[in-house]
Amino acid sequence: MKRAVYPGTFDPITNGHIDVLEKASKVFDEVILAVASFTGKNPIFSLEERVDLCRKSLIHLPKVRVMEFDGLVVNFARKIGALVMIRGLRAVSDFEYELSQALMNKKLCEELDTVFFVPHNKYLYVSSTMVRQVVELGGNMHDMIPECVEAALKERMKSLAEYK
Amino acid sequence: MKRAVYPGTFDPITNGHIDVLEKASKVFDEVILAVASFTGKNPIFSLEERVDLCRKSLIHLPKVRVMEFDGLVVNFARKIGALVMIRGLRAVSDFEYELSQALMNKKLCEELDTVFFVPHNKYLYVSSTMVRQVVELGGNMHDMIPECVEAALKERMKSLAEYK
Amino acid sequence: MKRAVYPGTFDPITNGHIDVLEKASKVFDEVILAVASFTGKNPIFSLEERVDLCRKSLIHLPKVRVMEFDGLVVNFARKIGALVMIRGLRAVSDFEYELSQALMNKKLCEELDTVFFVPHNKYLYVSSTMVRQVVELGGNMHDMIPECVEAALKERMKSLAEYK
Amino acid sequence: MKRAVYPGTFDPITNGHIDVLEKASKVFDEVILAVASFTGKNPIFSLEERVDLCRKSLIHLPKVRVMEFDGLVVNFARKIGALVMIRGLRAVSDFEYELSQALMNKKLCEELDTVFFVPHNKYLYVSSTMVRQVVELGGNMHDMIPECVEAALKERMKSLAEYK
Amino acid sequence: MKRAVYPGTFDPITNGHIDVLEKASKVFDEVILAVASFTGKNPIFSLEERVDLCRKSLIHLPKVRVMEFDGLVVNFARKIGALVMIRGLRAVSDFEYELSQALMNKKLCEELDTVFFVPHNKYLYVSSTMVRQVVELGGNMHDMIPECVEAALKERMKSLAEYK
Amino acid sequence: MKRAVYPGTFDPITNGHIDVLEKASKVFDEVILAVASFTGKNPIFSLEERVDLCRKSLIHLPKVRVMEFDGLVVNFARKIGALVMIRGLRAVSDFEYELSQALMNKKLCEELDTVFFVPHNKYLYVSSTMVRQVVELGGNMHDMIPECVEAALKERMKSLAEYK
Repeated sequence: MKRAVYPGTFDPITNGHIDVLEKASKVFDEVILAVASFTGKNPIFSLEERVDLCRKSLIHLPKVRVMEFDGLVVNFARKIGALVMIRGLRAVSDFEYELSQALMNKKLCEELDTVFFVPHNKYLYVSSTMVRQVVELGGNMHDMIPECVEAALKERMKSLAEYK
Repeated sequence: MKRAVYPGTFDPITNGHIDVLEKASKVFDEVILAVASFTGKNPIFSLEERVDLCRKSLIHLPKVRVMEFDGLVVNFARKIGALVMIRGLRAVSDFEYELSQALMNKKLCEELDTVFFVPHNKYLYVSSTMVRQVVELGGNMHDMIPECVEAALKERMKSLAEYK
Repeated sequence: MKRAVYPGTFDPITNGHIDVLEKASKVFDEVILAVASFTGKNPIFSLEERVDLCRKSLIHLPKVRVMEFDGLVVNFARKIGALVMIRGLRAVSDFEYELSQALMNKKLCEELDTVFFVPHNKYLYVSSTMVRQVVELGGNMHDMIPECVEAALKERMKSLAEYK
Repeated sequence: MKRAVYPGTFDPITNGHIDVLEKASKVFDEVILAVASFTGKNPIFSLEERVDLCRKSLIHLPKVRVMEFDGLVVNFARKIGALVMIRGLRAVSDFEYELSQALMNKKLCEELDTVFFVPHNKYLYVSSTMVRQVVELGGNMHDMIPECVEAALKERMKSLAEYK
Repeated sequence: MKRAVYPGTFDPITNGHIDVLEKASKVFDEVILAVASFTGKNPIFSLEERVDLCRKSLIHLPKVRVMEFDGLVVNFARKIGALVMIRGLRAVSDFEYELSQALMNKKLCEELDTVFFVPHNKYLYVSSTMVRQVVELGGNMHDMIPECVEAALKERMKSLAEYK
Repeated sequence: MKRAVYPGTFDPITNGHIDVLEKASKVFDEVILAVASFTGKNPIFSLEERVDLCRKSLIHLPKVRVMEFDGLVVNFARKIGALVMIRGLRAVSDFEYELSQALMNKKLCEELDTVFFVPHNKYLYVSSTMVRQVVELGGNMHDMIPECVEAALKERMKSLAEYK
């Protein structure tokens, strides 16, 4: 059984991520979407919320399973028996970061390779950060994120605004 | 059966290509290394020689099959029933070219995705062009190319030198 | 009447920005320099101060009008009837970010295009961030920023130092 | 009257070029599409053919005028009284080349600035080179080039094939 | 006497930095490793700790002297009579930042040039940030950092974990 | 004695190259400018002419010696006892190519490192290729190349034009 792991913070999951998962589903027997508990900055959504939004957005992809992890991604990948790690590539700046991560992970875990997918043209400029900013400023991202994510983001922005 | 196609001119095949094929062999049931008859410039080796050197260099990879093709790679991929196309990524300049090719191929053939692998650290700077140049100038590339390729390159350079 | 909008945080305005505005003034009938109230991080100068420094620095450009805005820049651009958005391009890293922003803004507002200017050679490496750092460390930036900005920055650094 | 010049070899003109011209038409009173007689390599189409295909493809844009030029583009721009030069930007590699050209042209002609437009998302990966290659290999580019260009390219490829 | 200065935050020093220093030692008579007191963010290690770890890691390089500095690096370089500044280059994103810094420093101090070294292949993807992250997540970096740095990092992570 | 080698085709030498040599002269006891006999394409100037133009342009730099070489540059560097190789860095595309060359040369000759210099701001966009193109099209490059190079280029262009 060929299993791949697709790690990230998914804060929140976007249609770009889902597009990568659809492509990966054709290649692998199982794809574990691995939501990192550690994000390195203050996430908009808690780990539970991020996992929950991923699950709701991926019901149509039976080969994809959502899990959470902490610690090094290579250790998690080893534990679940993943053959490769999956990453999306959108831009040159992505590429440099991803290349150094791939080389570092290869060093930390000799048997784990990284495989890159390119999302559909229309998602090339979509990132979780950009989605958060646009919605925070009152913009509409409904082509770029699943419905449940859009609802959750608007809810979150409303309660953040009330606190100020 | 999950079949991938890895197209290129392979003029000549390098250890960087072979490293990508070893990684791809773990993911796919069959990998077709597809040698392009059309190279867009004067190749050092004829189509037959390029195919032959690939075959000799890949005996240890039973899942890899070497074929030649002409015309558009997406048409060839469709004909042989390939699920995805494989490409290696070494550098930012590679990445930009490969990204535009991947988007163009996706446009020419909606169902064909491109999957990228990163070769091992020690092959990151190896290209067929650099190999040809170094050997032409008398350098030794034996860590970077299969033995049969090194022998063929030296032979070729010798006969080119005699013609001058 | 052809109106363009040049949005940013301008924390503070530099000679690079002013050079872009001088070029844009030749092309458009009116250029709105739009100072963002939301900066995404702690600005050195308040919105009022940033607007004030822009106004003082642009007295010689009668076609340029300084305004503040909040929310999405595309909404502001629509409200004031801007034909295009203006951005400066200095480096590859700029370019990637600006390209994704331009594509996103095009998506959010179909009729709004982005037009890029390249500042003069001598300003290619100047950014607001670099200006703040150099002045903070005691350096002299007088060729790179308007006089009023230099005075304000030194004043601000002095009061920040007293707080420590 | 605000006149811009959009120079290139246009071998052949693509929908990406036309998209840039449509955007520029909104900003300028007149846009001169300037077809270079000197291409630095063997063009597929002669100067007359390239000019002719541009004219046929741009009938719907009354503000655009097609002219040919030889020598330095800055001299041509000066002669026709162009305020700025227009260029399209698609990718990082484009950007670096265009930046150095813009700086060089600024040096050769102090009063001439370069203004960059980004073509629509769907044309980001289209170049004249890629169009020629795909059609040469038998592919279909009808979304990416005007009808008259597609017909001319197929005609040309047929006669090239007969020569071989 | 040819003296070079190699400035940075060194939070912490890595084998990549040491590799650059070994190369620089062959070229210059003395290399001052200059540890910045100001880091622009919260460092993991205090200035004293960073200096101490550098000294312990560089005992085998008699031409290298570790000093601390505050303020602009060009002022420090001038004070100690440095001929040039040294920087390591690993990736394209590094390069753009370093190029703008080099141009800015040249502007701030006309007589000070910057000289770039490329670390060994196996250190190309190592940065202080990545080292901190991997150790924080429980990973092993012993090929990438000196022993004393590894011990100090583990100690620090342990006490940070206890605070939580 | 610290000797460096600065290899290239120098077809022709530009003020950007000379700026790099002036910087390198401050660091090294001797700098060998090594003109490659093999250029990989048709050079404008013969090897003798290129060497001659370099010599005439570098009379003011007594530490620089002009030599020609063929074969691998690492073999030449070893033969003349060079400590390091010098290269100029202007742009990201330069950087990627130079990085792969530096890594390859390090592999071919373990003891030879590459050291990079950044030319002055005003030469950042100057390349031999651009110089040839501008002069060929009738432009004036007198700030960018030595006088003797400008005269030789104009002479060459005149005789090329007569042949047509």
